[in-house]
Amino acid sequence: MTPEEARRRLVRARVGRLATVRRDGSPHVVPFVFAIVEIGSEIRAYWIVDDKPKRSPFLRRIENIETNPSVEFVIDEYWDDWDRLWWVRASGTGRVVHASNERAMALEALGEKYPQYRGSPHSGAVVAIDIERISAWEAGAG
Amino acid sequence: MTPEEARRRLVRARVGRLATVRRDGSPHVVPFVFAIVEIGSEIRAYWIVDDKPKRSPFLRRIENIETNPSVEFVIDEYWDDWDRLWWVRASGTGRVVHASNERAMALEALGEKYPQYRGSPHSGAVVAIDIERISAWEAGAG
Repeated sequence: MTPEEARRRLVRARVGRLATVRRDGSPHVVPFVFAIVEIGSEIRAYWIVDDKPKRSPFLRRIENIETNPSVEFVIDEYWDDWDRLWWVRASGTGRVVHASNERAMALEALGEKYPQYRGSPHSGAVVAIDIERISAWEAGAG
Repeated sequence: MTPEEARRRLVRARVGRLATVRRDGSPHVVPFVFAIVEIGSEIRAYWIVDDKPKRSPFLRRIENIETNPSVEFVIDEYWDDWDRLWWVRASGTGRVVHASNERAMALEALGEKYPQYRGSPHSGAVVAIDIERISAWEAGAG
């Protein structure tokens, strides 16, 4: 898979699975929805921590990122025909977005991709992942 | 979601996303296929490291587990209707299976679930995850 195709799939993916590391050094992984924004040569993934479920699994990721900002997420599609399998992984640094311009941009990108994020204002924390490395794998590609 | 239902979904899931922690403390996440075996009150997930692609992302997980045996994986389904979202996470300890009886049992369970694992013998490493904690989330469940 070319780097361009890996990027295209990252942009289009509806869901990813995000891994962080807990304070005690154990891994944490949950599904998340995100939007990709490319600014010059930078590529960032933005996601928003839902307001409503103030429950630990959602907030755990933010706590983890504050302790250890190293994050990785994967997108893929599963098929019972394993010749069709592929994945794209993105690794980088997570940070809570505080600047209002960047927050507005992230909400714009998320609203563009997911109708659920349009309209009503969101008070939840926005998190940016500054992507530093993208790797990809495709079945049968060697 | 009841614990019984979470277990049922773990057993049925065709794919999971497995997080480990690298030697440098950063998270690593990739899709994987696995089979669940319940023995008495123990619940284990087994997966096999493919022979063919002796490439770093596949072997990385084993290296990571040998350094830090703490692992977590998540199963979920994505729908654009977010009221249908759910996930089940399983956390535990990973270990390479050396005993021949346990290896045979794992291959039996994997072959039962995935036709690709039937017939031809596998020389790849089998990894067990001894599951210590299962947590689940369902949209709208509070």
